[in-house]
Amino acid sequence: MRKIDVCLSPDLMHLYSVTDKTIVVVDILRATSCMTTAFAHGIECIAPFAQLDECLAMKAKGYFTAGERNGEKVEGFDLGNSPFEYMNPNLKGKKIAFTTTNGTLAIAKSKGAKEIIIGSFLNLSSVVDYLLNSPNQVLVVCAGWKGKVNLEDTLFAGALVEQLKNHIEPDCDAPLAAQRLYNLAKENMVEFLKDSSHVKRLNRLDIHKDIEFCLTSNLYQIVPVLDNGVLRINH
Amino acid sequence: MRKIDVCLSPDLMHLYSVTDKTIVVVDILRATSCMTTAFAHGIECIAPFAQLDECLAMKAKGYFTAGERNGEKVEGFDLGNSPFEYMNPNLKGKKIAFTTTNGTLAIAKSKGAKEIIIGSFLNLSSVVDYLLNSPNQVLVVCAGWKGKVNLEDTLFAGALVEQLKNHIEPDCDAPLAAQRLYNLAKENMVEFLKDSSHVKRLNRLDIHKDIEFCLTSNLYQIVPVLDNGVLRINH
Repeated sequence: MRKIDVCLSPDLMHLYSVTDKTIVVVDILRATSCMTTAFAHGIECIAPFAQLDECLAMKAKGYFTAGERNGEKVEGFDLGNSPFEYMNPNLKGKKIAFTTTNGTLAIAKSKGAKEIIIGSFLNLSSVVDYLLNSPNQVLVVCAGWKGKVNLEDTLFAGALVEQLKNHIEPDCDAPLAAQRLYNLAKENMVEFLKDSSHVKRLNRLDIHKDIEFCLTSNLYQIVPVLDNGVLRINH
Repeated sequence: MRKIDVCLSPDLMHLYSVTDKTIVVVDILRATSCMTTAFAHGIECIAPFAQLDECLAMKAKGYFTAGERNGEKVEGFDLGNSPFEYMNPNLKGKKIAFTTTNGTLAIAKSKGAKEIIIGSFLNLSSVVDYLLNSPNQVLVVCAGWKGKVNLEDTLFAGALVEQLKNHIEPDCDAPLAAQRLYNLAKENMVEFLKDSSHVKRLNRLDIHKDIEFCLTSNLYQIVPVLDNGVLRINH
């Protein structure tokens, strides 16, 4: 039987072999939720960068620059890290260079995997279908917050473990812990997460509507896939 | 209000400042459960070592050598890693040099903390009382399995968060996740852990009775404290 494992922090990536794996990178609040939303609204491609300066340099190549540091939009960037910014019809067909505190770093640390895809609650069922139709082992890489484990990414990992359980089995304790937390939280994730550190951080920034949106399941039927360093969706 | 944080793996220790903290090291299966049991049966002191050869060298200084690698007793060692071995009256007043795959490594990585104590379900209520009477911030360091997060150490961390909640507040998401898992598991921890990787590993080694014993709460009223590199209990 195929296996699914969960890496709860990018700082634990050295423990996992990646060459035989489809890696699902998740940063619910808010990088991978933004990316999913952007593709659902017609963005052509997203180039993810771990470093700010690399991202900014893409402006000269006709890319929109997007992302955040410490939850806030970067000065001089075209776009921030709220999914609502990516619903703009003017962005259709455009290219985006994206950098965030945790999410794009998690993508960078997943390098060497057989395949890297982007997961969020917004495209949960599409990710589940994609993984069911893949022959690869699965590793979910949670972006966390500056290396620390967070609840919302863990819950998404748990949602994948739960929804794949009849076909792909948990490889270790991290997927079991994530699955149990998801089953505890799934009826009301906003309530479950109200004490979490990232939700408290974002509520201070007055973006509670982002949180509710990012915790909505199965809104978009797309799966962004990394192809030569750039994310695209298959039509 | 004082805070409690949880480091879910020794490989995440670089994320935590330790100088102002009482660190509770936990390796439920089975290092810290063995240490607690040994002190409850009259051992004078335990010198923990991350490396096998350092531990073996203590034989010349009159120490009993004890511990495991990959869950099994080390050849040439006097004692293994089953708590039942430490109930032997012949060990009363003796000194032990101890090394295990994960537990003693977690102690080594906690170096620099204001204080390091040993926690297990066996001395849970005594650890709770000890922390309530301390002025320090608290960090629970889970030994895990070769860097990976495990369920049983996470549950113990969650037990501490839960039992201290009226006096010491969770500092981040890891303590919240641990607390919720503990509350989900506490009525029947043996059942909750039956799919966990370490329990499956130990069941293969035919030591199910060790697991049940190590998941027993509040059997011993002692707290081992590290003092100049050696664990002792205060009488």
